[in-house]
Amino acid sequence: MAGLSTRHLLGIKDLKESDLHLIFETADNFKTVLNRPIKKVPSLRDVTIANIFFENSTRTRLSFELAEKRLSADVVNFAASSSSVSKGETLIDTVNNILAMKVDMVVMRHPYAGAGVFLSKHVKAQIVNAGDGAHEHPTQALLDAFSIREKYGDVAGKKVVIVGDILHSRVALSNILCLKMLGAEVMVCGPTTLIPKYITSLGVKVEHNLIKALNWCDVANMLRIQLERQDIKYFPTLREYTMLYGLNKEILDSLDKEITVMHPGPINRGVEITSDVADSKQSIILDQVENGVAVRMAVLFLLAGQTE
Amino acid sequence: MAGLSTRHLLGIKDLKESDLHLIFETADNFKTVLNRPIKKVPSLRDVTIANIFFENSTRTRLSFELAEKRLSADVVNFAASSSSVSKGETLIDTVNNILAMKVDMVVMRHPYAGAGVFLSKHVKAQIVNAGDGAHEHPTQALLDAFSIREKYGDVAGKKVVIVGDILHSRVALSNILCLKMLGAEVMVCGPTTLIPKYITSLGVKVEHNLIKALNWCDVANMLRIQLERQDIKYFPTLREYTMLYGLNKEILDSLDKEITVMHPGPINRGVEITSDVADSKQSIILDQVENGVAVRMAVLFLLAGQTE
Amino acid sequence: MAGLSTRHLLGIKDLKESDLHLIFETADNFKTVLNRPIKKVPSLRDVTIANIFFENSTRTRLSFELAEKRLSADVVNFAASSSSVSKGETLIDTVNNILAMKVDMVVMRHPYAGAGVFLSKHVKAQIVNAGDGAHEHPTQALLDAFSIREKYGDVAGKKVVIVGDILHSRVALSNILCLKMLGAEVMVCGPTTLIPKYITSLGVKVEHNLIKALNWCDVANMLRIQLERQDIKYFPTLREYTMLYGLNKEILDSLDKEITVMHPGPINRGVEITSDVADSKQSIILDQVENGVAVRMAVLFLLAGQTE
Repeated sequence: MAGLSTRHLLGIKDLKESDLHLIFETADNFKTVLNRPIKKVPSLRDVTIANIFFENSTRTRLSFELAEKRLSADVVNFAASSSSVSKGETLIDTVNNILAMKVDMVVMRHPYAGAGVFLSKHVKAQIVNAGDGAHEHPTQALLDAFSIREKYGDVAGKKVVIVGDILHSRVALSNILCLKMLGAEVMVCGPTTLIPKYITSLGVKVEHNLIKALNWCDVANMLRIQLERQDIKYFPTLREYTMLYGLNKEILDSLDKEITVMHPGPINRGVEITSDVADSKQSIILDQVENGVAVRMAVLFLLAGQTE
Repeated sequence: MAGLSTRHLLGIKDLKESDLHLIFETADNFKTVLNRPIKKVPSLRDVTIANIFFENSTRTRLSFELAEKRLSADVVNFAASSSSVSKGETLIDTVNNILAMKVDMVVMRHPYAGAGVFLSKHVKAQIVNAGDGAHEHPTQALLDAFSIREKYGDVAGKKVVIVGDILHSRVALSNILCLKMLGAEVMVCGPTTLIPKYITSLGVKVEHNLIKALNWCDVANMLRIQLERQDIKYFPTLREYTMLYGLNKEILDSLDKEITVMHPGPINRGVEITSDVADSKQSIILDQVENGVAVRMAVLFLLAGQTE
Repeated sequence: MAGLSTRHLLGIKDLKESDLHLIFETADNFKTVLNRPIKKVPSLRDVTIANIFFENSTRTRLSFELAEKRLSADVVNFAASSSSVSKGETLIDTVNNILAMKVDMVVMRHPYAGAGVFLSKHVKAQIVNAGDGAHEHPTQALLDAFSIREKYGDVAGKKVVIVGDILHSRVALSNILCLKMLGAEVMVCGPTTLIPKYITSLGVKVEHNLIKALNWCDVANMLRIQLERQDIKYFPTLREYTMLYGLNKEILDSLDKEITVMHPGPINRGVEITSDVADSKQSIILDQVENGVAVRMAVLFLLAGQTE
């Protein structure tokens, strides 16, 4: 069996298109497993995985933890707030210590861009990036693309618009790289203040008018406004943002075709999308969550195969 | 086998008397298991249970977690403080996301009364209420009743007084409903400020004099004063409370008969009961804790049987 | 098989020399296990261990948790911050409650000296002290001695200097007791303000000059300065400490012989040792971490054997 072209999953930019297809086909199999009464496989028995989260995250941590448990891996969790990080230890020391305890793989969420890349150069274990600052969130992009592929059979040729705060979003960057590699057409849509200028160099269209963007696309991925991040000074205001870029049922029904609505969660209902849109038949938001476990199982399984 | 009359355990008020007996008989079996060298059964292998605690709780969470592990379920824990709840997500979205990851059952503690009921109407999973505000705490009532049944052979006809802060206590309400359904006589005892007026409508006696209440009862369930709750303005003061409603060895020994002392924990030693009472032969406080695991195993086992 | 001479591991001072050798020989076996592809043994299947940490600790908690999981024990974790301790419950009540849930062994970290000893007198379970205030940290001392034994074949006759804040260190006291019992010569080195006067009564040498101490020893155990402890008023200042007692590569290379460098972690790089020392061939810091899991497996395995 051909494996992945990389030992780590640090970002989509390190993957080849063949890697993406291998991950998706493996995830197809695991999704079948997850729908059986017995949802567990012994694939990673005797593999120990440490989930190291330097930032809070419910859904990503739970999704990884469930993926690991379904694969029968041994799992240890480590939250930065209760860690020796607060005692002045460096990231490399923290992780090297965990690895000296014979941990095979590290799933890491970190507030700084590049933390996973940095770490992979200094420690022996395999690193899976579960989000590094505003940089990449590769498993989110993989599960998003997998969900589009599931809906339409193929990602190639689909028109996907990513709406919202592109500037501070690791989801946006990983999604763009992944969708482009798979042959989708990608557009970003949002206020000029939240769209970085370099974005066009990635081969994406930019559109500031939501209605025009939605009428162009097959799929709209509505990013969340990160209300909890005090360091972001949003302009326009939240109310203006919702007026200009919030998706409601009226807009959805007024479009020329039936588009698919995605959201990486957690949703701010009434901000970026209304409840009737989130819960509509056109929404595949919960499919994304469900697919997340299967896709993460595929990534962990394929990476574990690399070390043997 | 006849099952429970409900898919969820939201409160005692949704159960029938036959449900209570079925839970107790099942718990009898699991208590035998817990006293064997091998304390584990494979009953819930391949069932995934999420413990979602929006309030801190040591004993209830540990008791559920141990019950789940003894049943061989897969367990994921989720504490609200480290969750996307702080990112503005709704309760339904949080739980639906967890469920999309193929979780079969949710054990939830929540600060608001009715949270479990609300949730059960909006999500597909089975919900076990592990305490919702000042509303219900059904597994506590079940383990209390189970412990009385264990001590006396039967709950019917026993006289039980619940002493303390009835007003803010979910334990009190669930206990009253459970004990009444099983045919016990129930009295509440405490200062007028901590006994809600509607309580007599539940068919319980009210007594403000502790000595009179204790001389009437077979069993005294001494509720804890919730010192940590800043939102409760206690009147009388703590010192007055202890003088009027605290149970000490002198009082216990002065009674006409040997009553049984219970406490839902955690104990404030020297406030609602003194150490010599808590540690006396008449106390079944640690039996309550031990029985908690068996009763919770019974509840989870019986509910899991409902879905098949 | 001869067992340990104690039911608990509260401190090195309760152990006999034969206990130390039994632990080391058992740890040898487990270290072999940890280097196999299948790192798990079924030795503690059906034993339930509660890790109760009243202080934060990454490495010690993770090391114990991995040791327990490699032994196939059932593990529950309990952090004091999210516990009923904050609800006014006593330590004995907290632990007795956990034990009533049929927990066989308690691994406890506590900020107060003697907490483990106190507890062992009042509860039935076996207690493993994972650090109690500035008192003892026996498994750290055991893994340190095991690492010296691994490096030199034997601890007896080796010269070990412990450098740093002896006064506030549980690692220092346990190490001194353990190394002396095994026949090593022990010296402590640091500023007078951080060396307690009673220390000479333990049969150790005191040296205030780092270079002299290093030229004397075979092994230097560089303790960490506990920057996070606000209650410690360090004199000299951190900068002076590093100038006088920090170990850098220049000093290391200037010594007459090639000494071995140890550190209990977490390291403050640039404070007590520089990075090039920590990462040098003379450092066995990561071996210590690796050995920690094997030594803790040995302790838990041998203690579990005592109860049968």
